[in-house]
Amino acid sequence: MTPTQKPQQDPLSADRYDQRGVSASKSEVHDAIRHLDKGLFPNAFCKILPDAAGGDPDFANILHADTAGTKTSLAYCYWRETGNLDVWAGIAQDALVMNLDDMACAGATGPLLISSTIGRNKHLIPGEVLAALINGTTAFLDQMSDLGVVIHHGGGETADVGDIVRTADVGFTAFARLRRDRVFVNAIKPGAALVVLSSSGQASYEAHYNGGMGSNGLTSARHDLFHAVYRQKYPESYDPATQTDLVYSGPYRLTDPVPTQAGDPDLSKLDMGRLVLSPTRTYLPFLREVFQHLRPALQGLIHTTGGGQTKVLHFLQGIRVVKENLFPAPPLFRLIQKASGTPWHAMYRVFNMGQRLECYVEPQAAEDFVQLASRWNIEARIAGYTDAVATSDASEVLVKGAYGEFVYR
Amino acid sequence: MTPTQKPQQDPLSADRYDQRGVSASKSEVHDAIRHLDKGLFPNAFCKILPDAAGGDPDFANILHADTAGTKTSLAYCYWRETGNLDVWAGIAQDALVMNLDDMACAGATGPLLISSTIGRNKHLIPGEVLAALINGTTAFLDQMSDLGVVIHHGGGETADVGDIVRTADVGFTAFARLRRDRVFVNAIKPGAALVVLSSSGQASYEAHYNGGMGSNGLTSARHDLFHAVYRQKYPESYDPATQTDLVYSGPYRLTDPVPTQAGDPDLSKLDMGRLVLSPTRTYLPFLREVFQHLRPALQGLIHTTGGGQTKVLHFLQGIRVVKENLFPAPPLFRLIQKASGTPWHAMYRVFNMGQRLECYVEPQAAEDFVQLASRWNIEARIAGYTDAVATSDASEVLVKGAYGEFVYR
Repeated sequence: MTPTQKPQQDPLSADRYDQRGVSASKSEVHDAIRHLDKGLFPNAFCKILPDAAGGDPDFANILHADTAGTKTSLAYCYWRETGNLDVWAGIAQDALVMNLDDMACAGATGPLLISSTIGRNKHLIPGEVLAALINGTTAFLDQMSDLGVVIHHGGGETADVGDIVRTADVGFTAFARLRRDRVFVNAIKPGAALVVLSSSGQASYEAHYNGGMGSNGLTSARHDLFHAVYRQKYPESYDPATQTDLVYSGPYRLTDPVPTQAGDPDLSKLDMGRLVLSPTRTYLPFLREVFQHLRPALQGLIHTTGGGQTKVLHFLQGIRVVKENLFPAPPLFRLIQKASGTPWHAMYRVFNMGQRLECYVEPQAAEDFVQLASRWNIEARIAGYTDAVATSDASEVLVKGAYGEFVYR
Repeated sequence: MTPTQKPQQDPLSADRYDQRGVSASKSEVHDAIRHLDKGLFPNAFCKILPDAAGGDPDFANILHADTAGTKTSLAYCYWRETGNLDVWAGIAQDALVMNLDDMACAGATGPLLISSTIGRNKHLIPGEVLAALINGTTAFLDQMSDLGVVIHHGGGETADVGDIVRTADVGFTAFARLRRDRVFVNAIKPGAALVVLSSSGQASYEAHYNGGMGSNGLTSARHDLFHAVYRQKYPESYDPATQTDLVYSGPYRLTDPVPTQAGDPDLSKLDMGRLVLSPTRTYLPFLREVFQHLRPALQGLIHTTGGGQTKVLHFLQGIRVVKENLFPAPPLFRLIQKASGTPWHAMYRVFNMGQRLECYVEPQAAEDFVQLASRWNIEARIAGYTDAVATSDASEVLVKGAYGEFVYR
């Protein structure tokens, strides 16, 4: 392929992903950690450790790390372009929620302890950005406290490492200690109902419409949506070794209005940059109530991050999940698909496509989950069901919808 | 200053440091976090939190983050140059010990929980490097276990973020829960003896001679020691915005033999790269025994990382520390000084200069501390004493030795 020739098929193919320096499957990482202990409950959503903190056999610990990934690079460009520091508060929330919602899926809904690790290029990231990150963190913790979720700030490290970090890298690590009988372990059976919670819209605790992005797929989304003008303008925002035509090869400026179609929500107060930068929604308040009131009906909880709508495959034993009533793709994901020409089956493998939390539940309780989500103005719906497959290693996910039928194994 | 003109004085001046993208004083970071809660015991070496993990008023928690900093960039160059993967195990140890020894100075000597955060540029860092980092981590934990220090591995995150990370960034976060009456809080009084533990030599649990580097000052040391040939060869190993004459402006190739002088240890099995890459020594086995047997005599414990021999200033109230018998500068630090022309007073402000742990103790117990260190073949010595100064905000450190007398406030 010559540098100017666009790939003709599947722009999210493993090859294209790889050329942008992202492991679609993380197979190398999984190979490297294969021999590490899987923890007390391998089917829990997070690694569950013995109670190192207290030495009590009735308790377990979780220590969990994640970052905002390359969403930080987009925040950098948007801040440089507009002067808007708020996007850095969003990045703090992104990195936090990537941890907190994973841990909540394992039963840890507070109290929690968090610590940040920020690497920055001091030439490019001044103190006011650090302040925005730190204040964004405390504001999010205060908001969670108001919603009944207790999170303590343990401090953190901010390193000036311009020889390593092009702009900024923002991560958090979170700790929880909980009773072992409170650890939630996925056990998804045939005949479960699948309830999904929307990642877009405006939850009662959100200040603006949320595009639904989360913090996954950003390397693809950034380069496929945004315009080549940023190649020259912000060369520090991408790897110079990436093939040029894969860098910022999209139609939009960061401050362009969001194109909408009939039936879309009013997005006139946003622009393309902020649509993609919507801070990752947390489902913590919902999950905390689920464990208090609906736990007996619960079989599985999946935070659909890396792997998108196929993430659940890691937690299935001899089960097929039929997803036949997912949310219609919100505007953000339609725009990514259109700009990139990505086949829809690949879109569902990389992005959450409008729902970032899956609850596998006893069918008679499904409506209770939908109702509970509505308390925070989060749309939820019964999106499908599970059935058995012939052999335990033949688990699969079937997505059926407006864009076709896609099978993932 | 024109791009080719060398600065005439103090190559570790704030200005030169700043041009290389490093905060000598971290003042911006301190400003950004000034309003954050300082924890239960502000004079402890780490932030001490209430027991979020257990809700017990008799207990406290520490959640602590740190990285290997730009030492990772040097490991990258050395690995590329020689194919030696062992240096990545050293980087894992560097990032771990930067956490563990800080926490041990606050009384947390195990059990501990750790979690890694690794960001990599997948184009440049293959799976074998991830495996070396992960195996290096488990090997270090196994070794600590043999020495009586229990550390559990909580897992971690490995992110492919080439748009953010030039090569690799390696960090850890560690958690400890301990009884509040076991938290060690610095209370350094006039009339204490200062016992320092060597950062160089070969401890009983180290496989090779340790140059004493630790994980601080690496941006300066790398560029001041190593040769301009690496500018062209590994442009991914530094910030291209750095003034060219400050990048790899030193005399040495990575595989050059270490120049020595009469009285130096035999360093013929090392080369310059591996001398600087010596994995950060941990003092955990020593500190664990200190708390078991010598605690009543202990007034202060300082892990001399960022800030070098002036680090203790953060923990003094109306005290002068007189350091008049520090270890002679080991070969590594002499070479850095000579290559860079850095004034000695600046060397002691940036580097540990041959000792990375300070114990402020009752004078009659000082020899016991020296003896205890010798159990692991770690050289220790009584290096000075404390006395009172007129006002509580006039604390100072006085370094007296072969290179002059330097006062720091």
